[in-house]
This record gives sequence, structure tokens and C-alpha cells, in this order.
Amino acid sequence: MNKDKVPRPERLSQLVGQPVEAIVTPALVVDLDAMERNLTRMAEFAKKHNVRLRPHAKTHKSAVIAKLQMQAGAVGMCVQTLAEAEALAQRGVTDIFITNQIVSPAKLLRAVAVAQLLTQTNGKLAITVDSALGVTRLAQAQVQAGGPRCVIDVLVEIDVGHNRCGVAPGEAALTLARQISLFDGLHFAGLHAYNGRTQHTRTAQGRRDAVSVAVQDAVYTRQLIEDAGIKVDLITGAGTGSFMLEAASGVYGELQPGSYLFMDVDYAKNERDAAQPNFEQALFVKTQVISVRPELAGGHAVCDAGHKSHAVESGLPLVHPLGAGMGDDYALEYFKSADEHGMLRAAGSATRLPALGQMLWLIPGHCDPTVHLHDFMIGVRGGLLHGTVERILRVDARGAVA
Amino acid sequence: MNKDKVPRPERLSQLVGQPVEAIVTPALVVDLDAMERNLTRMAEFAKKHNVRLRPHAKTHKSAVIAKLQMQAGAVGMCVQTLAEAEALAQRGVTDIFITNQIVSPAKLLRAVAVAQLLTQTNGKLAITVDSALGVTRLAQAQVQAGGPRCVIDVLVEIDVGHNRCGVAPGEAALTLARQISLFDGLHFAGLHAYNGRTQHTRTAQGRRDAVSVAVQDAVYTRQLIEDAGIKVDLITGAGTGSFMLEAASGVYGELQPGSYLFMDVDYAKNERDAAQPNFEQALFVKTQVISVRPELAGGHAVCDAGHKSHAVESGLPLVHPLGAGMGDDYALEYFKSADEHGMLRAAGSATRLPALGQMLWLIPGHCDPTVHLHDFMIGVRGGLLHGTVERILRVDARGAVA
Repeated sequence: MNKDKVPRPERLSQLVGQPVEAIVTPALVVDLDAMERNLTRMAEFAKKHNVRLRPHAKTHKSAVIAKLQMQAGAVGMCVQTLAEAEALAQRGVTDIFITNQIVSPAKLLRAVAVAQLLTQTNGKLAITVDSALGVTRLAQAQVQAGGPRCVIDVLVEIDVGHNRCGVAPGEAALTLARQISLFDGLHFAGLHAYNGRTQHTRTAQGRRDAVSVAVQDAVYTRQLIEDAGIKVDLITGAGTGSFMLEAASGVYGELQPGSYLFMDVDYAKNERDAAQPNFEQALFVKTQVISVRPELAGGHAVCDAGHKSHAVESGLPLVHPLGAGMGDDYALEYFKSADEHGMLRAAGSATRLPALGQMLWLIPGHCDPTVHLHDFMIGVRGGLLHGTVERILRVDARGAVA
Repeated sequence: MNKDKVPRPERLSQLVGQPVEAIVTPALVVDLDAMERNLTRMAEFAKKHNVRLRPHAKTHKSAVIAKLQMQAGAVGMCVQTLAEAEALAQRGVTDIFITNQIVSPAKLLRAVAVAQLLTQTNGKLAITVDSALGVTRLAQAQVQAGGPRCVIDVLVEIDVGHNRCGVAPGEAALTLARQISLFDGLHFAGLHAYNGRTQHTRTAQGRRDAVSVAVQDAVYTRQLIEDAGIKVDLITGAGTGSFMLEAASGVYGELQPGSYLFMDVDYAKNERDAAQPNFEQALFVKTQVISVRPELAGGHAVCDAGHKSHAVESGLPLVHPLGAGMGDDYALEYFKSADEHGMLRAAGSATRLPALGQMLWLIPGHCDPTVHLHDFMIGVRGGLLHGTVERILRVDARGAVA
């Protein structure tokens, strides 16, 4: 063992072909069959509704998965950070939309480099703006890079109820569209109209109401800009919680869902919309019981997956009954997380604790930041109970927050 | 750009010698001067109180920092995962204590490999147990590895109020100590008596009460084991919130604090104990304002550091006033985090919002899981305002949860 031969990736590659039992805990595991069914269902949905699909790579941060999505019909990928764009562009993803604001001149120079790389491979880069400064600095970066040597698609982000970034629908968007049109290296490509809050609105009616507002805002803003003689090519947005509604609107030309691929506890809390395809849970944290304390009041067990293994900011994980022999008299609640530990107790009327050494499967509270914690996802074929490790999926943009 | 030449580490190394302004956001930044003062203060405290210092590497996951701590007098390092032990052992840290339970035969085989490596370099491995199964499997792993070819120190974890892993103080610990003594390759090395809850108990009196209980539990258990003819070499435990009390007990021979090196918002909430050295905040997330929305009710700004950049499970970060011209009329509250965004608003009676593009410094809510999110820490010398990047600290055990 020396620092030039770090054994972890090597050890992981030795897992390929091994049964699921060989996976050492804690580990992030993808049920490939479920993931591919989710991937196909979304691709078919988009085809059927004649709307472009541009899945969000912030969920998986993996070029391999991005390419699977594009092979199934996606027009390109969304990313949330420049470093994600770089990670995907370096690995052959050719059409990338940065759905976020960048105002740092140093980062915009890097964005221009990505745009030039993508253009060389017949792809392209798109980016959102919500400020005059953002537009000016992007154009300046193109000049600083000796250009403009390629055209960057620029979409104006309008705030359709998310209450985060964006400009108000209407005049402010027109002002930015006009500014973008002044630069040779920039193409005003439409409106980014995404409402993250809608995705986690629990009732189907609540989501319908929210998308209805977003659609009105987008239509109004598009009209205003087109009345000024500037074409609005595209209105893009939507996530896993609401995309059926944006697709049905006739206004959104492109959908940006990410989580549908893996799903999580948080999305499972949403009331199902009748038009929504049935997405399956495909992302799990395999964990082992490392301590059992029946002697304590109530009794608890401790597993080796804490919040360094799965994100808890949207809620704690669920313990999947799979393979643990759970039923009416045996059910577990993950009731508290620490950095490297998870606390488990009998749920509801159940009283049994798991055995020391028992392997358990957790459904993460929130899939995107859970993937971000890991360097690798272990892809299993044939189910988590009797399946086999088929491939190790590198989280290419792990830690790539800048 | 291609996948064999990922530019991120390269770009980071180019930062060395550059002024702080050159750090692109979001980034994890260590104030090296503050960190070294914290490191020295703790080392001097341990020397003065004649107690061994074994800092916890779960905080920084960096072999470079571990070696700085050992050069200042630490006897070795604590780790919380086997993968952390491997990462440090591969990089020359010779004395490692895994303060956690491992019951997986595959992982115990790896632990034995680490023990053999450390023994070859005149170091050693120690590990805790809290079950007969854990002891048996560790001994079996030594045999499976063709040994025992070295002696592993085994400490029995007793639950002194943490209410997580461990056995109850008393007979159960004696039973395990007896079992450990049966194996040639295992040496019963004492009691691991750590209470994580104590560290975050807000009042100084509350921590004194908790440590008093822990000390009584440890003394009682030690007496019982020694009465049975088994020597208890060491009682080890304590963290950044309480170590002054364990040091003063005359019972604890070793302290395991980790967070003192960096500190965080959570630890800053503790009422200061008179005996506690003055630790400074040394870990920061540099972030940039990427959107400003004065037109909204109340008004807010958005920065580029969300909970993929800093852990929020123990609370949201604080905005450090440094360099932002903040005062009575200008103060910011980080009031909501998203994956890649932080929401800021004027705090208290202040009304000003930051300018678009403004750089800000966040004090993370919880240091350990924040470091775990990053591949690198950027070490700055000479202060965050006018300092220079001195070195890039690799988070060697990032993602090393298994």
C-alpha cells in the first residue's frame, strides 16, 4: 500500500461480477434495472408528448449515465455548476445547458472554453442569465478568450414562483433579451422558467396551480419579447414533480427533470399525479448493523451509514424491508443520523431489533446531494437481493461545486 | 481537455502563491495561521495537563494535517472509518485508533492489513469493540491473514451517556476484556469512553455533569476489570466541547478532540468553559453573490454555496462580516440552503443587500461533514482579507466512508 496505489477504486473494480453480498458497507448502490426503466419511461413520455428532454445531471454527475440518457433521446444535459459542465464535456457529452447564474469573470472564461470545446464537436453550450452584469461579463470573457470564436446560447431566467434567482416576468426579461442580442457571440435562446418549489409541493392540485402560474408568466414574457421583434426559441424548465404539467402546457418546449432516474424519500411523499409515469426507487445506501443495544429502554441498533453517506437535509432515510425479513412484527425506523452512524429502532408496533451484522438497504432522503457525497456508485443487475455487480459508475463531477 | 487531464487539481495548484481574491467560489478555505494556533494551543494544553493527545482525523481527513498534529506532540490519530485508517496509513501516519465498531469480516481483513503495515513501521493499530462477535471476527481475520503476525490493541467501548454504540459500564465490559485476553494477536488496551452528546451540551455546567458521570462509569468499570486481574492501560475519549474536563479528571489518559482545529457555528454556541483554550474559526467557505433581488418583498440575495458545499444538518452557516464592509446597518443572514444555492437576507435591523458579484465568507454549521464534501482545502496564509494561498490540502479520505 502506498499513496500512488490507493486501493479503493481498484477494490471496487474487483467487485464487478460479484454478488450483491460482496458489497462492503456503507456503499451507494444503483439498481440498474430500475434506473433503466425510469430512464426509458421518461424518454418515452417526452417522445409521446412531443417535448424535448434535457435531464439534469446534477442528480447523477456521471458522463456514462448522461450518455445513456442521450442515447434514449435526450437532446443534451442540464448542469448546475460550471465544474459539472467541464466534467461532462471532457467525457464526450456535447450539448450542455448551465441552468445557473455565473458572474465571476474567471469562471466565465472557463465557460467560454467549454463552449469552444463543445462547438468543435458540433455541440453547444447554453447558460442562463438574470442580470446585465452577467451578460456583459460573459461577452467580455469571449473577447478575452480571443473571440467570440463560437456562439453561446443565453437564456433569461425568469422567476415563476421559485423565489430564488431570475428576473421578474415581463419587462426585465425583455431588457436582458435586448442586451443579449447586441453581442455577436451570444444568441438569445429563450426563457429558463423553472420553479423548484413546485417539485416538492405535496398535492397534485398544488402543483397544477403552481405550473399554471409559471405558464402564464412565461407566455406573457414571451409575448412581450416577441412583440419587440426578438424571437423566443424555447421555454425550458420543469422537474420530476411537475414535468407532466409543463409538457401538457403546450408552452414549455423542453423538460429538465433529474431525480426521476433515482427517486428518493422526499419525492415519494408527493401525491401522485395521474399523468405521471411510475418511477421506481433505484438508488440505495447499503449499510450494516454494527451495534445492537437491546438492554436500553426501547432498544436500538446502530448502522454504519450516517450523513456522510446520505444527505439528510430533506429528511432521514427509510429502511427498505428488502431482504431483512421485515413484516408486521419487524420494521425499522432510522430515527437519528450522526456523521458515520445511523440510529435504528423498531417502528410502530414492531419490537424486533435487527441482528448484529445484518445488512440493510436505505432509501436516501434526497438523491442529488447523496450522490454528491460519493466518488462511485455501484451498479447492480438482477435486483438487490440476488443480483450481481455489473459496473462501477464514477461520480465524475463529485466535489465539482465550482 | 480530456478525461485524463481533469483540470481541477491542476487549476488548484496554480493558485499557490496567488492572493485570496484569486480563489474561485464556492471553495473550502483554511486560515492556516488560525489552524496552526488552534493546533498549538491544544498540544500545549495536553502537555501542561500531562495527558496524551490523539486528535480525531474524521474532522480533516488529511495526512498532512495529521502529521502536523503529531509533530506538535500528538501520540497518533483517531479515525472513524477503516477507509480513513487506510488513507492515513498509506501516507505515513503510523499510529491509528479506529474509534468505531467493525463487524464485517471483509473489512476486518483490511483492518488486519493496516495493522501489519503499521507494525512494519514501528507503529500500531488500535480498534474498539462492543460485542463478542466483533472480537471473534477480528481474531479470525488475523488467522485468515496468515497470522496473527502482529498485535492489535483492542479497547472496549463503554457507553458513558452517548447512547449510541458501546456496552453498559461494568460486567459487560469485563466479559469483553476477558475474551480479548484469550487471543494472542489481540491486546486489551483499555476503555473507549466517549460521549458525543456532551460535546454539544450548551451549558458549561451541563458538560461538567455529563463528564462527571462518564468518569464515574469509567472508574467503576476499570476497577471491576482490574479486580479480575486484567490491566486497564488507558481510558480514552473526550471531544472539543469537553476535553478540559476529562483532562482534569485524572482518569482519562488520552484526549480525542477533532473539531478544535477548524471550529464551526455549532461549537461556537457552547457556553465557554473557563479552562478552555481560545480556539479560532479556521475553516470557511468562500462564496459569491450570483443574484440579487431587491424588488422582492423583504429582498434577498443568492450565493453560490448551498449544502453541496457545506453541511447543514447541525444548522445553517453564518456570514462572516470580514471584508464585506458589514456593520450595524449591513449584516447578512443565510436563511435557507439549496443544493447549489444559499439564500441571504438583511439580518436584524439591517436593510442593505450585498452587491452582485460580492465575495462573502461563510462559517460552516458543522466542520466535519463540510470537509467531507470537498476534495481539497485551500490553505491561506496571512488572513482571508489580504492573504496568499500557501498550499492545497488534499482531503485524502474524502468519500472514504467504508
